[in-house]
Amino acid sequence: MRKKAVLLLSGGLDSATVLAIAKAAGYEVYALSFLYGQRHLGEIACAEKLTEKYGIAEHKIAKIDLTLFQGSALTSNLPVPKHLSAEEIGKDIPVTYVPARNTIFLSFALAYAESIGARDIFIGVNSLDYSGYPDCRPEFIAAFENMANLATAMTGQGEKIKIHTPLINLTKAEIIKRGIALGVDYAMTASCYDPAGRKACGACDACLLRQKGFLENNMRDPAL
Amino acid sequence: MRKKAVLLLSGGLDSATVLAIAKAAGYEVYALSFLYGQRHLGEIACAEKLTEKYGIAEHKIAKIDLTLFQGSALTSNLPVPKHLSAEEIGKDIPVTYVPARNTIFLSFALAYAESIGARDIFIGVNSLDYSGYPDCRPEFIAAFENMANLATAMTGQGEKIKIHTPLINLTKAEIIKRGIALGVDYAMTASCYDPAGRKACGACDACLLRQKGFLENNMRDPAL
Repeated sequence: MRKKAVLLLSGGLDSATVLAIAKAAGYEVYALSFLYGQRHLGEIACAEKLTEKYGIAEHKIAKIDLTLFQGSALTSNLPVPKHLSAEEIGKDIPVTYVPARNTIFLSFALAYAESIGARDIFIGVNSLDYSGYPDCRPEFIAAFENMANLATAMTGQGEKIKIHTPLINLTKAEIIKRGIALGVDYAMTASCYDPAGRKACGACDACLLRQKGFLENNMRDPAL
Repeated sequence: MRKKAVLLLSGGLDSATVLAIAKAAGYEVYALSFLYGQRHLGEIACAEKLTEKYGIAEHKIAKIDLTLFQGSALTSNLPVPKHLSAEEIGKDIPVTYVPARNTIFLSFALAYAESIGARDIFIGVNSLDYSGYPDCRPEFIAAFENMANLATAMTGQGEKIKIHTPLINLTKAEIIKRGIALGVDYAMTASCYDPAGRKACGACDACLLRQKGFLENNMRDPAL
């Protein structure tokens, strides 16, 4: 029997790559996406397309309302910063940061894993070409894994939860290279923080990091 | 200015006591409750009565659907165990355990705290007279606090999140004694896992632990 894994799937470039990596490693994938009040809802449609293409075991979409807690441009009408330079992106924690979002997403992934008997959780965080969110860093992931191993009923039985972060030390260009090698169709992904009816704004951090990654692979972004 | 605290308020005996403790300690309380698919919905009405009585700053109710992840008697039609002996309660992890529930609740509390600039989170877990849930133990709380201090934007500024668990080493009788001294009206609380239209079944772990606690204080449970 193949090993089960829970995968956090936003529908963006990173999580699509992680899906391909988990599948290539032989896992039976249980994908989890969130409707959390994000303005960039198009990513959920991408998540659904990706799960169809990759033939996963199950796809759950959890509805949680993170607009309850104010402060992020991703869940409100605050303007999304545009046209930052490569040096500016990730320098300070930006207004697109959603308080405790990855902590909440991983907590749901932990509940999902426990309910299906999975011990492996995949998340597409990376800490090089990123927006500077604190909950994407390796030390956060390590602390979450440590906590998870004290949180659940299964851990009394000597089993260990493992949080897999295969992208954490890769640049965006390296992530894309890896995904291309695994046959990921990046036309099926969406990364933009502020699509506003278009496919992508082309100017937010997520768009700029993505463009740079494709450029460094001498490619055009197929999602544009 | 008074210090802000986020308090997880189920509407049960324990969290009502913690509310009184946080108020007595001078905190400005921001209460957070959950509609998570629990069968014992009456506790939310109790939470609302308690917040009215205690004059808190704000009460948020987050809707999350933990029935997505199967396996618990609290979020399904599985029978709730009844009439266990004092030795049996808490010996094994029971079917009323909800996978990763306190991890999820604390994650939302962390998001709430970050969004209002609070550094203090109160939760009414206890690890003596309890149902044996792994996410009520001191080692879990310590690991969550450690993770929380790597998860958020504010922690880069030298500030620390503190998870307060004032009941963690108290028996149910001691919790009730403490609450009575602080003027808690336990008639306004609900603890039963399986009320089914009544106030309480009188036979689930939560009811039995509660009855024992009042008996040891030579009192009758005012909620019955």
